[in-house]
Amino acid sequence: MSESKIDTRLWSSKARNLSPYIPGEQPQHDNLCKLNTNENPFPPSPKVGEAIAKVLEQQADELRLYPAPESNDLRAALAQSYNLDINQVFVGNGSDEVLALVFASFFLKERPLLSPDIGYSFYPVYAQTFGVELVQIPLEEDFSIDPDAYRQPCSGIIIANPNAPTGLLLSLADIRKLASEHSNAVIVIDEAYIDFAQIDESNADLPVSAVSLINECDNVIVTQTFSKSRSLAGLRVGMAFGNASLIEALTRMKNSFNSYPLDKLAQAGATASVLDTEYFEQTRQQVIDLRTSLTAELTTLGYKVLPSHANFVFARPKDGDASAVASALREQGIIVRHFDKPRIAEYLRITIGTAEQNNRLIDALKALQVDASVAAE
Amino acid sequence: MSESKIDTRLWSSKARNLSPYIPGEQPQHDNLCKLNTNENPFPPSPKVGEAIAKVLEQQADELRLYPAPESNDLRAALAQSYNLDINQVFVGNGSDEVLALVFASFFLKERPLLSPDIGYSFYPVYAQTFGVELVQIPLEEDFSIDPDAYRQPCSGIIIANPNAPTGLLLSLADIRKLASEHSNAVIVIDEAYIDFAQIDESNADLPVSAVSLINECDNVIVTQTFSKSRSLAGLRVGMAFGNASLIEALTRMKNSFNSYPLDKLAQAGATASVLDTEYFEQTRQQVIDLRTSLTAELTTLGYKVLPSHANFVFARPKDGDASAVASALREQGIIVRHFDKPRIAEYLRITIGTAEQNNRLIDALKALQVDASVAAE
Repeated sequence: MSESKIDTRLWSSKARNLSPYIPGEQPQHDNLCKLNTNENPFPPSPKVGEAIAKVLEQQADELRLYPAPESNDLRAALAQSYNLDINQVFVGNGSDEVLALVFASFFLKERPLLSPDIGYSFYPVYAQTFGVELVQIPLEEDFSIDPDAYRQPCSGIIIANPNAPTGLLLSLADIRKLASEHSNAVIVIDEAYIDFAQIDESNADLPVSAVSLINECDNVIVTQTFSKSRSLAGLRVGMAFGNASLIEALTRMKNSFNSYPLDKLAQAGATASVLDTEYFEQTRQQVIDLRTSLTAELTTLGYKVLPSHANFVFARPKDGDASAVASALREQGIIVRHFDKPRIAEYLRITIGTAEQNNRLIDALKALQVDASVAAE
Repeated sequence: MSESKIDTRLWSSKARNLSPYIPGEQPQHDNLCKLNTNENPFPPSPKVGEAIAKVLEQQADELRLYPAPESNDLRAALAQSYNLDINQVFVGNGSDEVLALVFASFFLKERPLLSPDIGYSFYPVYAQTFGVELVQIPLEEDFSIDPDAYRQPCSGIIIANPNAPTGLLLSLADIRKLASEHSNAVIVIDEAYIDFAQIDESNADLPVSAVSLINECDNVIVTQTFSKSRSLAGLRVGMAFGNASLIEALTRMKNSFNSYPLDKLAQAGATASVLDTEYFEQTRQQVIDLRTSLTAELTTLGYKVLPSHANFVFARPKDGDASAVASALREQGIIVRHFDKPRIAEYLRITIGTAEQNNRLIDALKALQVDASVAAE
């Protein structure tokens, strides 16, 4: 609705002051090469559709009943998969809802919340929604996070890891340091992209996820999502892992907001996804391999590509005119994300697509460079 | 988790002070006669399962993509069905989520929110969650609502209509009066049960829903749900209807909390439900007919039954010992809802079941009376 026609007379002051999150666009054209919202190029596990179809065949009548309010089957499957107790696991309607409940449960205090100045752009929105003072700590010049820069009183720290849109990974040693130096604050590690992280190919078993710190650090909450590595953005399921007392706070907050956030079908589908570890391992490795080759090709074209641990790369064209490249790609039906913000305006965030999509992107970028050199002659 | 083990040291003050909503229990036994959470005794329209199965067959791969953030197809179907513009329609993850967003969007002001002292028990929870002062206005002796009792400064009024757990209906004339007398407040009519309302059998076309007031009163928001008359409690879909500027506030609040609350399958299933008007009309009439016969049978057994416009009845046993009746029924696998609260402790809220379930209930109540008279001899 156009701004001029909006009558805010009956809105709460909170509603008037909001600056809502703007998600990446979801155009509905055919043959579009959509590399702008970090969706997985592969479909979800076939077990997901089978599990939901089974509910529809055998229990469609039960859709008349409320679903399991605490999603116990799904939480039990996650607990087993992550080697945790069920009361260390929380699930919600996408990790966005989980993060909102995290903000309400832990950050409404006298001390500010700390977060990198470049990160998931929903964090400042949540801070506004829940009246939390957010202090943004500048990333280093190379976009890395220095834990020492966080040495100040706070009620919490929230960091996307791997970070978005940079794709850089903070080490477990640094996260442990943050947790122990801020024992009176809740450290939230938003691991939306963690399943694509790989420190060292020769040592694939080395833990990269802060889930491995849950039993050691009682002030660490780790959020994850089914939207990226499990190819289920369309099903809206996210989760949090943490000390049972932190999970209890999230559960109470949920039950003061919406008792049944996950419908019966989403619970069944997500549970099937967790149980199909083989498919999960296979597709996430494929994305990692595609990232390696796309990174190499972009580098050959003169792009500076940050070392990504996510299902996207953050890349700077040689002349830094990322905005022009994004526009030129769009004309060819290839959508990538450009943030017109300080420090990152010269970069593009490009989602890892299928091999075919990545080739289409590289071909288009090559053609742009030929056009540019012809124009320069 | 047991209270004694909970460590609230890292909780926000908001989290510490919550008294979460306690939904009716969802026991998982076979052969249970579950008349405690006002679910529909009939299954959802078969078109719902067909629509979802079709998505799984033809577009399962697209579950990897984010769903339509504003649920445009579903909102368009609702707009057409209710003869409104699409920008007068909002949808969310169950009407509980919609109500939470309503509280955040309209009631955070200096003036209190007014609501009947007996109503949906989630309202006081929302008030606490969002820091809204709630002033409860006592219902009349006969549990009816007197609009004149609401003549005081307020930021809003919220009324369940038909009211829960009484089942009584407030007239459109009274709602119009509230809206015009409080032109600076938002009047929220929570119509979770409205599709079971019937003023006058001889005049079935007479409007009972406040949706008919939307174009006339710019300060009225009507919330409804797919959980009751559409037999889709398991799918989690609710909606709000109102002036486009009020809907815009809800949309912004949603996008400051969770951009994609409805998954792809829930959107498809709910849309199919809206389009199957024939099934909807048929099953809601069946529930109304079953209510009529259950009311008659309870009355014969000496129960005082309030005239219900919902898919439940609120009934008082002759001796007023509703708690004892609820316990005795539970021993026989029949669960009804008893609220141990002032004014209503002598009543039971009994969901309308299938004919078979209602007979089982009546037979059990008859047997209880025989037992009681034998014991009295």
